[in-house]
Amino acid sequence: MKESWSSFDTFEPSFRPLVVIELAKGTREETREWLTKRIVDKKANGGAQLLVKPLVTENGDQNIYLVGASHFRLLLGAESVGLVKECNDNSMRTFTYSSRKTFKDFADDNHNFLTMAECQYIIKHELENLRAKDEKIIPGYPQAKLYPGKSIVRRLLTNGILVQIFPLHDREELKKLRHTWYGRVKIGYQPLDEIRCYFGETIALYFGFLEYFTFALIPMAVIGIPYYVFAWEDYDKYVMFAAFNLLWSTVILEVWKRFCAVMTYRWGTLLMKRQFEEPRPGFHGVLGINPVTGREEPVYSSIKRQIRIYLVSLPFVCLCLYFSLYVMMIYFDLEQWALDYHKENESNFSSLMLFVPSIIYAVVIEIMNRIYRYAAEFLTSWENHRLESSYQNHLILKVLVFNFLNCFASLFYIAFVLFDMKLLRQSLATLLITSQILNQFAEAFLPYWLQKRHKKRMKKKMYSQKTDTDLSLVEQVNLEKEMGTYFGTFDDYLELFLQFGYVSLFSCVYPLAAVFAVLNNVTEIYSDALKMCRVYKRPFAEPTASIGVWQLAFETMSVISVVTNCILIGMSPQVNALFPDSKMDLILTVALVEHMLLAMKFVMAFVIPDKPRDIQIKLARLEFESLEALKQQ
Amino acid sequence: MKESWSSFDTFEPSFRPLVVIELAKGTREETREWLTKRIVDKKANGGAQLLVKPLVTENGDQNIYLVGASHFRLLLGAESVGLVKECNDNSMRTFTYSSRKTFKDFADDNHNFLTMAECQYIIKHELENLRAKDEKIIPGYPQAKLYPGKSIVRRLLTNGILVQIFPLHDREELKKLRHTWYGRVKIGYQPLDEIRCYFGETIALYFGFLEYFTFALIPMAVIGIPYYVFAWEDYDKYVMFAAFNLLWSTVILEVWKRFCAVMTYRWGTLLMKRQFEEPRPGFHGVLGINPVTGREEPVYSSIKRQIRIYLVSLPFVCLCLYFSLYVMMIYFDLEQWALDYHKENESNFSSLMLFVPSIIYAVVIEIMNRIYRYAAEFLTSWENHRLESSYQNHLILKVLVFNFLNCFASLFYIAFVLFDMKLLRQSLATLLITSQILNQFAEAFLPYWLQKRHKKRMKKKMYSQKTDTDLSLVEQVNLEKEMGTYFGTFDDYLELFLQFGYVSLFSCVYPLAAVFAVLNNVTEIYSDALKMCRVYKRPFAEPTASIGVWQLAFETMSVISVVTNCILIGMSPQVNALFPDSKMDLILTVALVEHMLLAMKFVMAFVIPDKPRDIQIKLARLEFESLEALKQQ
Repeated sequence: MKESWSSFDTFEPSFRPLVVIELAKGTREETREWLTKRIVDKKANGGAQLLVKPLVTENGDQNIYLVGASHFRLLLGAESVGLVKECNDNSMRTFTYSSRKTFKDFADDNHNFLTMAECQYIIKHELENLRAKDEKIIPGYPQAKLYPGKSIVRRLLTNGILVQIFPLHDREELKKLRHTWYGRVKIGYQPLDEIRCYFGETIALYFGFLEYFTFALIPMAVIGIPYYVFAWEDYDKYVMFAAFNLLWSTVILEVWKRFCAVMTYRWGTLLMKRQFEEPRPGFHGVLGINPVTGREEPVYSSIKRQIRIYLVSLPFVCLCLYFSLYVMMIYFDLEQWALDYHKENESNFSSLMLFVPSIIYAVVIEIMNRIYRYAAEFLTSWENHRLESSYQNHLILKVLVFNFLNCFASLFYIAFVLFDMKLLRQSLATLLITSQILNQFAEAFLPYWLQKRHKKRMKKKMYSQKTDTDLSLVEQVNLEKEMGTYFGTFDDYLELFLQFGYVSLFSCVYPLAAVFAVLNNVTEIYSDALKMCRVYKRPFAEPTASIGVWQLAFETMSVISVVTNCILIGMSPQVNALFPDSKMDLILTVALVEHMLLAMKFVMAFVIPDKPRDIQIKLARLEFESLEALKQQ
Repeated sequence: MKESWSSFDTFEPSFRPLVVIELAKGTREETREWLTKRIVDKKANGGAQLLVKPLVTENGDQNIYLVGASHFRLLLGAESVGLVKECNDNSMRTFTYSSRKTFKDFADDNHNFLTMAECQYIIKHELENLRAKDEKIIPGYPQAKLYPGKSIVRRLLTNGILVQIFPLHDREELKKLRHTWYGRVKIGYQPLDEIRCYFGETIALYFGFLEYFTFALIPMAVIGIPYYVFAWEDYDKYVMFAAFNLLWSTVILEVWKRFCAVMTYRWGTLLMKRQFEEPRPGFHGVLGINPVTGREEPVYSSIKRQIRIYLVSLPFVCLCLYFSLYVMMIYFDLEQWALDYHKENESNFSSLMLFVPSIIYAVVIEIMNRIYRYAAEFLTSWENHRLESSYQNHLILKVLVFNFLNCFASLFYIAFVLFDMKLLRQSLATLLITSQILNQFAEAFLPYWLQKRHKKRMKKKMYSQKTDTDLSLVEQVNLEKEMGTYFGTFDDYLELFLQFGYVSLFSCVYPLAAVFAVLNNVTEIYSDALKMCRVYKRPFAEPTASIGVWQLAFETMSVISVVTNCILIGMSPQVNALFPDSKMDLILTVALVEHMLLAMKFVMAFVIPDKPRDIQIKLARLEFESLEALKQQ
């Protein structure tokens, strides 16, 4: 390998490449020199004190750099990002270099104390915190302005000089992970701790939630099967199922918080202090004084942003919602047309035609969701949010509202305007199954196939026929830099959120939905795992303590499903038969039951503690210790 | 004065008495000596390093001690309780002795840097943190066991050796405060900052909330008056009023959080770190290892407590609720009897008799509330909660549920079972006004009168005819130690909570309730101020950042009032006339409107930020600074 690296020598004998920096083709020599100098420069001089080696690719370009760091430097970095690790006494503590000896498995020569994902996260953090000192511009690019304190990497990214930064895969580790994760046919839990070590907490938490959610759906699926098998139509059985469903969904969402706390405590992220948030890469504004930091940096008036949100984004979202409802009405026209056609010329073909409108509508919904997603991303980015978290919240809100309406409006219309339970059941089944198939295809198998084809072509080009693990570093980097980028867990959670809607909103009409959801999720685990390991570039680890705003979204959905299920039960002919004289009594009873269920949900959410008792005690002990330490100071 | 103090000399030339310790009569000499020695002993020897002077009362007993502290000692104490003060640059920071020069108004000879309430809070904190070292018992009392780390003062209190600890009034300051607070007839805000300096944050926050709530009720009262004056009965006007009421109550509760944040930021308590909570004085158990602190201390099994809560307290509360409903049914019998009586012999007397059952019921409700309160306190104390906060939460829950049912069950019965709007209006008015009069009387004027009588008798006994301000220290201490103890803001908040219920639950039936509430609250401010300044012992200051669980209680009440008001409007004949053909449409419309209002409430609560933008920025700046400081370490 060594001969393909340039003469850019560093003092570390065992350089382990962790992160790849790809510059644009034809980047000026002086820019490259300046950047590498800043990266290797001492902390005291404002550098990142990391190791850099350029990688000469086969066509002689020198626009790819490998970044690594000495063991000592990584430990200091772990302290500065506030990593929490397990101590010798089994408690979790924030790592500091001076107290390193008290941590479990720490030894000066144990380079596995930090996982590779942690090392890469630290390097990313250090690179992003490489800040301009007195440079007014990026050398070689007078149009790329800098000001003291501006993150150099973010400016390089927005100016297109830096194409991408990504962490390298570890072929050995990945092979092991793939084997335990999905390589062998077995019934069992996913290796969440290994996934966390390789991909970081955010992704491991998603897979944890996916697995938990699938297990949680199994009781509902099991109870749902006999409804289909025996064609039960008794109202009391449906009421039982719906009541079970509502309480169950509250319980699983509350218990998830406890599961999540146990996991993130073990991973250390539950205790990790939130870092001060930097402006997101796309943020722009005129130079001013930031009232929080007191530093000179771009400032964008909050009133301007509010105007953009309320006068442009909000009307646009409303327009999209209107359009979605319009498409829905076309679907109902088509449905009516297919029904008429079937009545006129009754044949096998015509009965098949009955399903066509639903399938077309499901495909159109998926397409609209995806187009809207781009529009929402563009708009939210145009709103110019200063922080990534604020950007994410606005994006999620936009996408959730539209997707909710787009997916469920037709079902609401069928249920509460047409009062057609048979059509509701049929539409629900078609929508659920079509969207699941489309998702599985678009999400994993299509990219996998594209990736496989690309890899073959690459290998041919290099005239090498080696197997996967024997790839040289140059080949590996070249392969990985062309792989797709994984844009976070947003789409995966969204899919689960909509699935949860299909399962719970109309559960008393179609108990079989839970069965399909379970089947889908079992394959989803495998296809998502495949996607992470084979299709996409390795993503940077992102520490997180919870699934964040998704918890709220799922809880809101479960509140809405109480309302819809109560109405559905109230509308069923069997319940109507119980109140032959007075529809009023029926409605009042339904309303009373609904309010009691809602009250019960809130009481349950309040009574079930968010963290198990032993985690509470551990957290209290840490707090007590830090108070004691402060006192002794 | 000096001659009446004993020869227990301390090095401080200007001893300022701050806190009074009263021991039981006939306390052993060795106990007194041991206690005073521990209080004055150096920190290094496990003492509190405070100043103590015994006060010889007229009958020669020596069971009262005055506690003070040197200026330097108080500053160190301020650091150990984590006091937050304003700096020279107008930011709020946690006080430390080493950075004392950077704080506003700090000077080595300025003894007013800490308010007297803060000094007394510090001394209380130091006294409570005086812990046993190797003593196994309290000297002189072999039955009073100690273990290392046990708070001496708490053990003395539970064993009855220590009668009470209370802070001294400052006659001069109190006179000034009384003058600006209620001494002159003026329209204006209360001097909340002065109240906070004298009585501490918890009490100032209560008065702030009372004032805010009164102002918030004024719009409702103003809109409510014409309904009474013009005897409006149009349904649309009532709907308007109810809708305004519902949104208004959401807005005021959300805006209060912002007000509260502004105030507590200025007072420094918003930033104050929560101290580690000690077991409450009444807590008992067998000696074991506390899993949090790792210290040997009494431990009480959580399962035993759960058994007590669910098998004793819960059934008892249910029994009380049943009894309360039973009493309500008796009231309705009485009401019926009075009505029959009035019909039979129509006279002035009989029409007066119509009001008697309501008045009797209101009185009985008040009495039951008070008796139940004692029972709830006894039960909650018997449940043996380890922490004061847990004790308080269980007590508040018990009391709130009972008081809610006790006060409002009859109104619910009249509204939703009897459907008698006229009776509802009459009962509401009677209950509201009677309970207000009873409260004002029982809370302030009765104790004030008792206190005044007692004071006169005391003065006579001492044969002194001096005016208030000329009282000698001995006289002052003797007067104050006999004054009633203020048991916290619980009863005051509860009164406001029930008033809020009367105003909002049935607001669309009786808009005048807001007028009575405003009138009551204006006098309540004065009577509560009188109570604090004249009737009770000075309470210890208690730092707090919010009104805590009461915010939740008020919000719950406002959610319930959405439901009740929607039903009331749906039941009104005018709305019924709008749906002449179908009651079903009416009920569905009402249910739809109710759900929309509830959804709107939640969205509003979500959208309105809990803290104003400038406070958010200030908090972010502090967080940023502490992160920067950590980095530079």
